Amino acid sequence: MSKNFVVAVCGATGAVGQEMLKVLEQRDFPYSKVIPLASARSAGKKVECKGEELTVQELTKDSFDGVDIALFSAGGAISKEYAPIAAKAGCVVVDNSAAWRMDDECPLVVPEVNPQDLDWHKGIIANPNCSTIQMMVALKPIHDEAKIKRVVVSTYQAVSGTGQKAIEELENQVRRLMSGQPVVADVYPHQIAFNCLPHIDVFMDNGYTKEEMKMVNETVKIMGDPSIKVTATCVRVPVFYGHSESVNIETEQKLTADDVRALLAKAPGVTVEDYPEKLIYPMAINASGEDDTFVGRIREDETIENGINMWIVSDNIRKGAALNTVQIAETLIERDLVRVP
Amino acid sequence: MSKNFVVAVCGATGAVGQEMLKVLEQRDFPYSKVIPLASARSAGKKVECKGEELTVQELTKDSFDGVDIALFSAGGAISKEYAPIAAKAGCVVVDNSAAWRMDDECPLVVPEVNPQDLDWHKGIIANPNCSTIQMMVALKPIHDEAKIKRVVVSTYQAVSGTGQKAIEELENQVRRLMSGQPVVADVYPHQIAFNCLPHIDVFMDNGYTKEEMKMVNETVKIMGDPSIKVTATCVRVPVFYGHSESVNIETEQKLTADDVRALLAKAPGVTVEDYPEKLIYPMAINASGEDDTFVGRIREDETIENGINMWIVSDNIRKGAALNTVQIAETLIERDLVRVP
Repeated sequence: MSKNFVVAVCGATGAVGQEMLKVLEQRDFPYSKVIPLASARSAGKKVECKGEELTVQELTKDSFDGVDIALFSAGGAISKEYAPIAAKAGCVVVDNSAAWRMDDECPLVVPEVNPQDLDWHKGIIANPNCSTIQMMVALKPIHDEAKIKRVVVSTYQAVSGTGQKAIEELENQVRRLMSGQPVVADVYPHQIAFNCLPHIDVFMDNGYTKEEMKMVNETVKIMGDPSIKVTATCVRVPVFYGHSESVNIETEQKLTADDVRALLAKAPGVTVEDYPEKLIYPMAINASGEDDTFVGRIREDETIENGINMWIVSDNIRKGAALNTVQIAETLIERDLVRVP
Repeated sequence: MSKNFVVAVCGATGAVGQEMLKVLEQRDFPYSKVIPLASARSAGKKVECKGEELTVQELTKDSFDGVDIALFSAGGAISKEYAPIAAKAGCVVVDNSAAWRMDDECPLVVPEVNPQDLDWHKGIIANPNCSTIQMMVALKPIHDEAKIKRVVVSTYQAVSGTGQKAIEELENQVRRLMSGQPVVADVYPHQIAFNCLPHIDVFMDNGYTKEEMKMVNETVKIMGDPSIKVTATCVRVPVFYGHSESVNIETEQKLTADDVRALLAKAPGVTVEDYPEKLIYPMAINASGEDDTFVGRIREDETIENGINMWIVSDNIRKGAALNTVQIAETLIERDLVRVP
């Protein structure tokens, strides 16, 4: 990495944007300049990266002149409008929203899983949904070894996935309930404190939520294998950071639990935490702040011929969003792909 | 119900015991006398039923003389020791612990599902595990109609299932975290506040927890059909009351989501809550204090030929424990079975 790059962070004042700046610093990303961008409302605010105070600039059509890489996390509407403008200005976009994920012109990438898809990018690369990313990191080595036929996943998703306001809502609701006051629900349609909401993102005509269909469709695109069938139930739980997933897998070839542990132990981005006899298993509070995806409770499912159950936990703001986005940018640099064809 | 019965409540000061007294009152159970029993430590305490103050008596070998029905919820060890003593004294035991559930001599009963199994009782009847009961109520009509082959279930279980001390632990941990103090974990091996623990009851040699194996084995016994295969992942979540379950079902015959809704709408003990367009679905906070099991998010699973996903929520202390126990006692009366053969 000889060259240093000009990097824009679009949505720099949000939960994920803030984490992106932190990850750029922690990984000593080879930038010459970071330009924090946000809406007019947030322009003028100060953010920090590598000890340097940066002034947030208003996102405009001219923001991307001279920018090499833009990391977007400012919502789907902003991405839809500004990512093509950035790409046209010669800036490679790594977009954390859902806007471009299923676009045939845009690779959808988890660097440990399908870095080769970056080779055909046309200026916009999509970062998958948080709950998909952590599942992909854990499933890829299993798919390579034994071919995954079907996945049944139920998620336990943290409120930070919704953003800063949802973190505050959970905290406020808990405080109010603890002092006997009625609860106000604003970000979510119902109380999230001490409750589970089987509802993430909007409902589709088929009865599934958009979040559930993201797991179904993004898995196929990232794995590059339309034969993998996924059915998902996505649930919001009163946890601040860290998504957990209960994943049931059916493979074509037989794998024992030990086989899976051995495969995952050498997989990039994965830490196996599976010592039930010592009461060690992945947990949201431990994954928070970590880069790896943690896998445990690995056991054979005897109800089918080749079945495995596992429990997958990762920091949804880091690997699920900011970290994966920065890793995509790093992989673009490694593969000498920081240019718009 | 012409006769009135002498009823003992064993474990009357615990979370479930207290709820049993409440349910006996609310359902106007035909008792002539309620005798609250507990350990020597709790003897002398006062409890209430139908406005009457009752003094808790110490559980001894002589506690069951003249008692017709004993409702046990004082832990497995107490049940193991005292249920046979009670039965020998001519008292029919309905036991809420795991001690007798898989005993071939003891029926395991959900009154809406297999009341006929009460006919062969020999003095001790077992109340199933909380997470099993609510699943059985929802699955029975589906099994009758389309024969269930396989179930993949992931649970979201409330701390009240562990007992009063766990309720206090969640509350204390939340208070401490909210005031920036370190957390103390005593009832659970790890922090439960704002966390998910993929660990309920003890770990078995096969890698599953005892709670997970209860769902596997109790389902077969209650349904009376060894061909139903269940694989489970049981998870404790920071919710006070109400277990939620994400359940994936494979049936022999095809059922549409509408078929399932129609079947469940007329099923005893079930309320269908499935209006996603109005953001209505079952939630723990709504199920709390209710008798019914709530089912929603009913949708076809396209990854298999005959698949259904659903979300099942019930009050784990009521239908999952106290209510089901009292309903068993009521069914014994209805079927004229309040005697030890």
